[in-house]
Amino acid sequence: MDGRIGDISPPGRLAEPTEGIGMAELALAARNHGLPLEALRYDVTPPGLHYVLIHYDIPTAPADDWWLTVSGRVRAPLMLDLATLRSLPAVTHRVTMECAGNGRARLAPRPVSQPWLVEAVGTAEWTGVPLRVLLAEAGVEPGSEPAAVEVVFTGADHGVERGVEQDYQRSLPLAVAAGDDPEVLVAYAMNGLPLPPQHGHPLRLVVPGWYGMAHVKWLREITVTDRPFTGFQQEVAYRYRQRADDPGRPVTRIAPRALMIPPGFPDFMSRARVVRPGRVLLEGRAWSGHGPVIGVEVSTDDDRTWHAAALAPADEHPWAWRRWQASWSATPGTHVLSARATDAEGNTQPLSQPWNRGGFANNLVQRVPVLCLGDD
Amino acid sequence: MDGRIGDISPPGRLAEPTEGIGMAELALAARNHGLPLEALRYDVTPPGLHYVLIHYDIPTAPADDWWLTVSGRVRAPLMLDLATLRSLPAVTHRVTMECAGNGRARLAPRPVSQPWLVEAVGTAEWTGVPLRVLLAEAGVEPGSEPAAVEVVFTGADHGVERGVEQDYQRSLPLAVAAGDDPEVLVAYAMNGLPLPPQHGHPLRLVVPGWYGMAHVKWLREITVTDRPFTGFQQEVAYRYRQRADDPGRPVTRIAPRALMIPPGFPDFMSRARVVRPGRVLLEGRAWSGHGPVIGVEVSTDDDRTWHAAALAPADEHPWAWRRWQASWSATPGTHVLSARATDAEGNTQPLSQPWNRGGFANNLVQRVPVLCLGDD
Repeated sequence: MDGRIGDISPPGRLAEPTEGIGMAELALAARNHGLPLEALRYDVTPPGLHYVLIHYDIPTAPADDWWLTVSGRVRAPLMLDLATLRSLPAVTHRVTMECAGNGRARLAPRPVSQPWLVEAVGTAEWTGVPLRVLLAEAGVEPGSEPAAVEVVFTGADHGVERGVEQDYQRSLPLAVAAGDDPEVLVAYAMNGLPLPPQHGHPLRLVVPGWYGMAHVKWLREITVTDRPFTGFQQEVAYRYRQRADDPGRPVTRIAPRALMIPPGFPDFMSRARVVRPGRVLLEGRAWSGHGPVIGVEVSTDDDRTWHAAALAPADEHPWAWRRWQASWSATPGTHVLSARATDAEGNTQPLSQPWNRGGFANNLVQRVPVLCLGDD
Repeated sequence: MDGRIGDISPPGRLAEPTEGIGMAELALAARNHGLPLEALRYDVTPPGLHYVLIHYDIPTAPADDWWLTVSGRVRAPLMLDLATLRSLPAVTHRVTMECAGNGRARLAPRPVSQPWLVEAVGTAEWTGVPLRVLLAEAGVEPGSEPAAVEVVFTGADHGVERGVEQDYQRSLPLAVAAGDDPEVLVAYAMNGLPLPPQHGHPLRLVVPGWYGMAHVKWLREITVTDRPFTGFQQEVAYRYRQRADDPGRPVTRIAPRALMIPPGFPDFMSRARVVRPGRVLLEGRAWSGHGPVIGVEVSTDDDRTWHAAALAPADEHPWAWRRWQASWSATPGTHVLSARATDAEGNTQPLSQPWNRGGFANNLVQRVPVLCLGDD
């Protein structure tokens, strides 16, 4: 009996209305992980708490035998080892990264894939070489003919997805890849240490403001092209589609989101929150890939009324989340708390789900049910 | 309307036969995480890949204002800060830790709780002070009257579970707590660095050979008692029961388990494995909390025949997992691979599920379906 790859690589689908999370979704949830929401307390997410999504397996990737090539529509192809990259002038950027599928498992109908609720986010200090420096070194010239239009990034993780065997690949428009605000990084350190295996050791791309799928891990090839890249992750996955036959729009920058540290203490099984009557400090983080967050509103009455939260002053980290705080006077009974971010471009979070077939960018406001105990 | 804690803290229950993983189980799976199985390749699990189970929230636990007390049936109560603990003679032990609930989500019926498949394991180098040194310093005397019989450990994580509000607490028999083989540690470092928040920063217990529930995190109180501890985590949770009214037996040491690094490459969604025809190296790790693993057998024909795998030589880490390898000649078609560990006490892994109502210690052999492609 011959084996065919299609036998084990199902097409994309939507869950039936009453279908619970299945074993395949659970297997993804057990290996990938989100940020425990109480870890929103840290400006920079400690190691191991930053969200992780691995498309295939973490590859074996020895730092002492790793080469990064820069080729395609360039005048001088490059082949760089880690020591060479580390000898170039380094920059460090604090970047909030979020998975494009964050919020997927709350959608109805639910696209069957990695089942994130709201927690696929994290913030790190990434150190590396600006990509524009490498592109300039390779002699990428926007004016040459035929013109360079995109840059394709190839990682070392290998697998199959909807029948297509592939190394993970994504592209960026040349203007984004070579831009200086924000600067795209070829990063070799996270929070001052070599990248951990699950974050792309020894090299990854960091694209401030873009969803995680753009930040190619285990990076080994950079290819400048004179036509748009049509690989699986660009043209099939990671598009906003309403129907399977809809060509869709590409998923790019992060939609605004505020998350609250769930107040009080939790029930183990339901994760429902318990507080005692009196003043409760509500706090959390907010971010957007379209520009700075300029406002966070909080509701403590199930989205009926909204009040402005206090935002931490703008700092030197425009691509990292911003802290916010509000005070709540808790009274006995059940309450639903929520927070909603608005960015400088006027994007805000919806109160009804922004559904699409891939389950991308569901930035529906977070709802945190809280039980306030009666006075004893 | 007054709030009552029972309203949001459900009793334990079993899932209905057709009930998929629910949103509460998914919320646990999204914040806790297992070891991606390809990370079985590392002798010591890199930061962020070791399994994590947090009962409630990660507490705010400042290392510079943390006190550990040793009190109860002692002659000289102690109150120690981190600097004092670090000034005592330190030891480092390599320990494989596994969640008692590992395998729970594969049970039928499925106990509703943290839904682990097989991946709730990891190995780390833990550094700290032997607990027996602290107990001796506090003057715990086995011969005193009334005799000290148990040691209770209290962590700083606070929550509610099946209606019981609690700080996380567990006990050990005095003979285990004060033992020197294995040595129980009050650990302040993991893999040479301060404990990460999710692993108990700044202090945790490490109990080589025992399931994870014994390794109390965010440790702040050690209390020597003259009677058995009857707290929730000891007498209600973490017991092997067949029925809700069964008093059960306590969950203690880790049952043997072998895990295989799934060979080849995966499908993104199904995590099914694909290999090409020819020789495939099968490898993984095996461990037991009852004593050294002395044998691993591998089956490549759906558990019909078993062959001995090659075990790495015994080393200086008796409480850490042991590497094993076997060779497989893959032929086109579908196959089911499995591995089975046996320890020095003769414990081995069952081929049918060892069901109990809490879903503990399900060490049913792992089954890895693999598709071998036809020759192109």
